Amino acid sequence: ALAAAGALLALALAPWRRRRPVREVLFFPSPPSCIEALLAEAAGPVRTACPCPLPRRDCALSRLLRRLLSARRSLDVCVFTFSSPQLGRAVRLLHGRGVRVRVVTDSQYMAVRGSQIGFLRLAGIQVRHDQESGYMHHKFAIVDGRMLITGSLNWTTDAIQSNRENVLVLEDTEFVKPFLEEFERIWEEFNPGNYKF
Amino acid sequence: ALAAAGALLALALAPWRRRRPVREVLFFPSPPSCIEALLAEAAGPVRTACPCPLPRRDCALSRLLRRLLSARRSLDVCVFTFSSPQLGRAVRLLHGRGVRVRVVTDSQYMAVRGSQIGFLRLAGIQVRHDQESGYMHHKFAIVDGRMLITGSLNWTTDAIQSNRENVLVLEDTEFVKPFLEEFERIWEEFNPGNYKF
Repeated sequence: ALAAAGALLALALAPWRRRRPVREVLFFPSPPSCIEALLAEAAGPVRTACPCPLPRRDCALSRLLRRLLSARRSLDVCVFTFSSPQLGRAVRLLHGRGVRVRVVTDSQYMAVRGSQIGFLRLAGIQVRHDQESGYMHHKFAIVDGRMLITGSLNWTTDAIQSNRENVLVLEDTEFVKPFLEEFERIWEEFNPGNYKF
Repeated sequence: ALAAAGALLALALAPWRRRRPVREVLFFPSPPSCIEALLAEAAGPVRTACPCPLPRRDCALSRLLRRLLSARRSLDVCVFTFSSPQLGRAVRLLHGRGVRVRVVTDSQYMAVRGSQIGFLRLAGIQVRHDQESGYMHHKFAIVDGRMLITGSLNWTTDAIQSNRENVLVLEDTEFVKPFLEEFERIWEEFNPGNYKF
């Protein structure tokens, strides 16, 4: 009878436990702000205050970072150019935390000055790239296989600070599923075993 | 009584008239295909068969074109680079049909070889651009103020035929509204009256 009552209570509380799926639009450029606290908080209990004069505020970059840092199991990143040190730190931090991180990028842009790809590989993160003349021009990420982050934004400081850009964040199977399938398709196709050079 | 019966009938039929909101994901590259018939059909009753050997098929490009050509009242385009002759024809066609077309683009890329921007202006379409060092890097369009088309795809032949790209199509106020507001904000900010050169 106690077990039945417990099950009934769990059932009754279910709608409250289920939070509303994320549906968010972020526009860039993001105003200059300090996101050190956000990264430090995600890194662990030791926190030192950042001495920089930039305001700590809710902005497009901090929101994007929070969404990425919410990963608990996996992060699949598929971006044309990845040179933002802040996003690089966030991704390495997740990897260090045990999140399974996979990165796909474009071969022609992965070695440009300031690219984060080398740092990601040094940290032990798996990175794969195309070997085609066409660009791997996607700019999306999938958090825990259920949150899609996609838009016009390359993961560069210029894009974040200077460009007009948009990012959609959605927890919606109808959109997440095809992007997950696209990621897996590309991940397999770009398997180093298939490289021809 | 007749009017009341009519109203009642309209009310009863309403759920059938209301179609499901569009929610679509398109991945590129799009396979080589002939989209002449699609453009000709949209242009008017006179149709001549295209002699090219390319297959006519349902593909990412034909789907994107169909969504754009569905515009009845307005088309707001906000794209970094616009050089695809096919998308250019579709946009001019809509303008010729009386659809209010507005185009926002990036000043540093609007004059590159193959740009469609000059042809759009020649056709009488209003085009505005940024005057900043940062890029106007958006790649979205809004059809009739209610369908959002957005993703990584620039409106270029290379992007359509060679790149890995994605486009989301959604009729969803929660996403369309912020993009409409972003468009209006940029449209006003890029008013030629504000140009400083």
